[in-house]
Amino acid sequence: MFISFEGIDGCGKSTQVQLLEGVLRTKGYNVLVLREPGATPLSEAVRQVLLNSTFDIEATAELLLFCASRRQLVEHVIKPEIAQSTIVICDRYADSSTAYQGYGRGIPIETVHSANAIATGGLMPDITFYLGISVSESLARAGSRSESALDRMERAGTEFFERVRTGYQNISETESRFCVIDGTQTVQEIHMQIISAVDALQRTL
Amino acid sequence: MFISFEGIDGCGKSTQVQLLEGVLRTKGYNVLVLREPGATPLSEAVRQVLLNSTFDIEATAELLLFCASRRQLVEHVIKPEIAQSTIVICDRYADSSTAYQGYGRGIPIETVHSANAIATGGLMPDITFYLGISVSESLARAGSRSESALDRMERAGTEFFERVRTGYQNISETESRFCVIDGTQTVQEIHMQIISAVDALQRTL
Repeated sequence: MFISFEGIDGCGKSTQVQLLEGVLRTKGYNVLVLREPGATPLSEAVRQVLLNSTFDIEATAELLLFCASRRQLVEHVIKPEIAQSTIVICDRYADSSTAYQGYGRGIPIETVHSANAIATGGLMPDITFYLGISVSESLARAGSRSESALDRMERAGTEFFERVRTGYQNISETESRFCVIDGTQTVQEIHMQIISAVDALQRTL
Repeated sequence: MFISFEGIDGCGKSTQVQLLEGVLRTKGYNVLVLREPGATPLSEAVRQVLLNSTFDIEATAELLLFCASRRQLVEHVIKPEIAQSTIVICDRYADSSTAYQGYGRGIPIETVHSANAIATGGLMPDITFYLGISVSESLARAGSRSESALDRMERAGTEFFERVRTGYQNISETESRFCVIDGTQTVQEIHMQIISAVDALQRTL
């Protein structure tokens, strides 16, 4: 099984990934948690390139770097792990490029889909949990987390995150694998909804 | 005007690029010579990633890295320079991905075209000089150049370079911008043919 988590910064993805991982491990499953971009030596190197603010990376070049990292992850980690019946959980995957580089930065969505298709070779999650929160909630949570997280978000601008949020909403309306969850609920409420959806999916696989 | 040079290692591209640059500068043109992958700070960083042999880069991930570098070069250097009437000469461009990653490594040609289209946004050279030599000639020239060049080529295998060479021949049959030149001629003979083709092209532009 292949599960991804999506949403804007501060939506609670990482917490929920950890809780889900714990439950699945307790049930005896092999679980692998991956964070994009990263998780392979190549992807970590690409991540360092992406984080270097002196490069002034053009939007579509950024998309292609994310996709290079994703391709390596798919071929060297995700596919082999799934083949061994590991449950793979990705904290961000192809939908992040559609939301951030497509809707956020304004790259044509067809271009993002084309790049994602090359990167994933068509391998998409069985289920994607989208944790929805407002941009003001995201900013408030970033501020309570660290000054640097808040700085980063304020530099990008609230309009950018509004476009990303609209993007996720649009994707959720067209992709049946999307499971939309109200991210303003308590951690435990969200966790129970995720467990329930994963249980339901396991019964169909 | 936008000119590219293509061919397998040792075909004489770099020498011919220098000679052409000299002639065009003497005629009073602004000329910019670019080498792929590189020529922007981002592209140099990506080049370092590509050269790191410990990463075990998957073929399509490699293609996407070349294309990220190319995209940055197109948007930040080639387009602005062409807009200022600079003659841009590229030592390798999109056709190298088709020949090396497509025909050489076996990535479907349609995938390479799709990645190149994202990278170039449709910006292709006005003319592409393909300097054809045999693989045995290429190996002989690499050996006389440096042990490391020969090592690198022998590691990839002669079959790989035969596929790349076949790829270039196929491209030359479908792309009217390709100007095929017999790379076994003398440096001066090749140079005169290139000058003649550039002159003819300038009269049509």
